Amino acid sequence: MHADNANFQAGLSKVESYEMLVMSLEGLLVENWVSNLANTASLLWHHFHSQPSPQKDVNWAGFYTTATANQLALGPFMGKVACQTIDFGRGVCGAAAATGKTQIVQNVHSHPDHIACDGDTKSEIVVPIINEGRIVGVIDIDCTELNGFDQVDAEWLEKIARLLAPSFKASTQ
Amino acid sequence: MHADNANFQAGLSKVESYEMLVMSLEGLLVENWVSNLANTASLLWHHFHSQPSPQKDVNWAGFYTTATANQLALGPFMGKVACQTIDFGRGVCGAAAATGKTQIVQNVHSHPDHIACDGDTKSEIVVPIINEGRIVGVIDIDCTELNGFDQVDAEWLEKIARLLAPSFKASTQ
Repeated sequence: MHADNANFQAGLSKVESYEMLVMSLEGLLVENWVSNLANTASLLWHHFHSQPSPQKDVNWAGFYTTATANQLALGPFMGKVACQTIDFGRGVCGAAAATGKTQIVQNVHSHPDHIACDGDTKSEIVVPIINEGRIVGVIDIDCTELNGFDQVDAEWLEKIARLLAPSFKASTQ
Repeated sequence: MHADNANFQAGLSKVESYEMLVMSLEGLLVENWVSNLANTASLLWHHFHSQPSPQKDVNWAGFYTTATANQLALGPFMGKVACQTIDFGRGVCGAAAATGKTQIVQNVHSHPDHIACDGDTKSEIVVPIINEGRIVGVIDIDCTELNGFDQVDAEWLEKIARLLAPSFKASTQ
């Protein structure tokens, strides 16, 4: 059953759990980008919550997609209600979208331009999704603990971004 | 902050909680249908989980949207990984899409054509979203208890479907 893909075994290492996630994702991908992002948000949420702290303290996992030339729009996610739009260059998501580079912020309250959708968030990682040279969206993960993310997260989330990129089509955004 | 919209007070009656949800939703709606469905899935999830059983036993809350003439595609949701497509007429979602009528199933295992995305689901409500006479999608809520939903849910979810309907555009599906 599809839901079983979200049942990550307890006790897996961080890398083993990401490997499970990517294996599930490869089996779930379809043409429809909204469906892909919705199921991926679920996989990410359940992956993080199967791991010890700080990973299990992830309070938001999802996507913003490029809505217009200079603005991101909220996409599928797991967590509390979020900001609907983010201008390129604004906050951590906007920095990833403007630069095309993964952003890891160990303490969002010391980030000069953090957008506080949720005051409980303390650290954040944002990974751009790039299709044929164009930023089509970002993966955004928030955590209620400081130092929630590291280079291992960056590498695996960048791999996930590459898997998701082909299903984005300009006409659907 | 946006996340505060997902903080439903404990102790509200079911109707009071739905009133809160609708008030929040009216303030959050934007033009982008994906953003609207993503935030609405979060509102629905947190509304149900602030209520006593069986409402707090909701294990999936989200959307399928009309992808082609006869098929629904998975949209934004909260919960475990779900089936990516559902043909019109198949299962409870497909029945709502084919008939344009709200479906309440008190025991999915006695439903002749239930699609088991998650074996834990025991009851389900599906409400069509209708824009200018066309079924543009459905709201789908699953519960791990029998008899999870009633006419009060049907009435409020139909109101939410009417609020969401205008942001659907044929070109974006």
